[in-house]
Amino acid sequence: MKSSELPSAVNKLALSRLISEVENETSAGKTALDECFPRSGKAHLIGVTGAPGTGKSSLVNRLAQLIRRQGEQTVAIVAIDPSSPFTGGAILGDRVRMRDLSGDPGVFIRSMASRGELGGLARTTAGVVQLLDAAGYDLILIETVGAGQSEVDIARLAHTTIVVESPGMGDDIQAIKAGILEIADILVVNKADRPGIENTERALRANLDLGYSHRVNGKAGHGGYTEEKGVESEDWVPPVIKTIATEESGFPELIKAIADHRDYLHKTGLLAQRERERLMDEFEHLLRHTLVQNWKAQASTEQVSQVMDAVFSRKRSPASAVEELTRPSN
Amino acid sequence: MKSSELPSAVNKLALSRLISEVENETSAGKTALDECFPRSGKAHLIGVTGAPGTGKSSLVNRLAQLIRRQGEQTVAIVAIDPSSPFTGGAILGDRVRMRDLSGDPGVFIRSMASRGELGGLARTTAGVVQLLDAAGYDLILIETVGAGQSEVDIARLAHTTIVVESPGMGDDIQAIKAGILEIADILVVNKADRPGIENTERALRANLDLGYSHRVNGKAGHGGYTEEKGVESEDWVPPVIKTIATEESGFPELIKAIADHRDYLHKTGLLAQRERERLMDEFEHLLRHTLVQNWKAQASTEQVSQVMDAVFSRKRSPASAVEELTRPSN
Repeated sequence: MKSSELPSAVNKLALSRLISEVENETSAGKTALDECFPRSGKAHLIGVTGAPGTGKSSLVNRLAQLIRRQGEQTVAIVAIDPSSPFTGGAILGDRVRMRDLSGDPGVFIRSMASRGELGGLARTTAGVVQLLDAAGYDLILIETVGAGQSEVDIARLAHTTIVVESPGMGDDIQAIKAGILEIADILVVNKADRPGIENTERALRANLDLGYSHRVNGKAGHGGYTEEKGVESEDWVPPVIKTIATEESGFPELIKAIADHRDYLHKTGLLAQRERERLMDEFEHLLRHTLVQNWKAQASTEQVSQVMDAVFSRKRSPASAVEELTRPSN
Repeated sequence: MKSSELPSAVNKLALSRLISEVENETSAGKTALDECFPRSGKAHLIGVTGAPGTGKSSLVNRLAQLIRRQGEQTVAIVAIDPSSPFTGGAILGDRVRMRDLSGDPGVFIRSMASRGELGGLARTTAGVVQLLDAAGYDLILIETVGAGQSEVDIARLAHTTIVVESPGMGDDIQAIKAGILEIADILVVNKADRPGIENTERALRANLDLGYSHRVNGKAGHGGYTEEKGVESEDWVPPVIKTIATEESGFPELIKAIADHRDYLHKTGLLAQRERERLMDEFEHLLRHTLVQNWKAQASTEQVSQVMDAVFSRKRSPASAVEELTRPSN
């Protein structure tokens, strides 16, 4: 997007409202998504994930700021709020971010709260990202809390996944077990001025060797991409980059690694493949949702409540209840 | 279950085979579930969750051993294996556990691997737990890795949820943010002989105060159940219990807290309410799954692939594709 085409404040407001329609799954939102979809597919989608306390949000802010300072690319940030699935939670992020970035027309920021239903969030996040993509943002940073299934969902939604760690969180153990390193295209050790940085870095590189040889079925070692040389071979080896988000240390390397990964995806045809997988995934998500909605629209409330009463009193199993209630003759 | 009714080795084998049928969702497995369902609903379902490295598995083993030593109750363990969603993973747990517990006819142990599809795992775990319940096990310990959504799923599956932490993992921060404390009915600080135990315990109690006042809408303080007094009021305040799984330290207190929580659920009517929610949840899960299967069975492969090609080339949106492919006239 050229600077002359940057969304004005008015457009940003319109975009914000459209996003709310998509979040609430209104018919206006659905129509907007259908209409903008052919214009989407140009943005570079970047997932940023990591445990709470790793300084992920500051890193995302700083990254957006420095990408903008380079001047060519526009940036949208979608922050999936780490609110508890049980209590909801306050969204403070936006206001804090706004101070640093809101003056810039080339940056758009949106927080989305996780409302407990993970499937719903994945569905609407995909939609919001498509809107921002169609609106012409070059880079879309999707920030989520590093917690199990959500990383997997990012890996499916994003082209490039950045996993953020920081010293002294016991992350070495966490990381291996949760398989989080396996989804990382780029590893960032943030708060690199903290004590323990060497240990964290060493643990990450060691795990990375393990995870990497696993991922490529033992085919390759560490000969591929390295942070220092910037050399590429057929396999992508995730670089480990040390950053200090409160300064600018490490960010030029991070921005370069993001661009390198994008090039790698292009060259190898993986970009097209990931796009197809993403779309297939979104299709299946929507299919499930729609089939349930359609079933609910035609189901007899009386029959459902009779059958469920039999389930609650353990006279019949949930499976047999489903079988009766989905029988075609209904 | 009286000792005279304990499953014999032969019955255990039959049960193992039946569980495999349920895991593979065969028709034999479905029939077995339908038939055993009316006999289920008696077991106390206990979820045990915590980050890798907290010694969760040792704790579960020791707990089963000591419950058995008290002699009255039989125990089944369902361990959801912490394999990565991307690579699968080895199941070593069973063999290690077997050494300690397999001689006892009142203990049944089953590992289940997470095969990447979280919905599928939740579905089959519910079924396996029902089988074990119908088979007459008094306590069913469901052990999972503490990682985001999976805790939430346990909270829905279990009557009593135990969250395990250990010193020096930075868990204080992790816990608050991920909302894990909000699902805890009982908090265990394992490895209580490790340095840092005081900090971990203090952080947990502080967070618990926060989380608790949140949970009950600020109605109550810490006047309810406390570890020391064993007093109950209307609200349940999760006790914090220090254990050392390599010894037996803390386990009598833990076993008592489990029994107390069961009593609390009974007395307040929450047990019946949780049962209904669990069954409703299972019904909805199965409904989604069945509707998709039925749709696939009747869908025209040719039409689907035409529509999906249009999606892949961004001529039409995934949502409009779903709309066409689920239109009743199809």
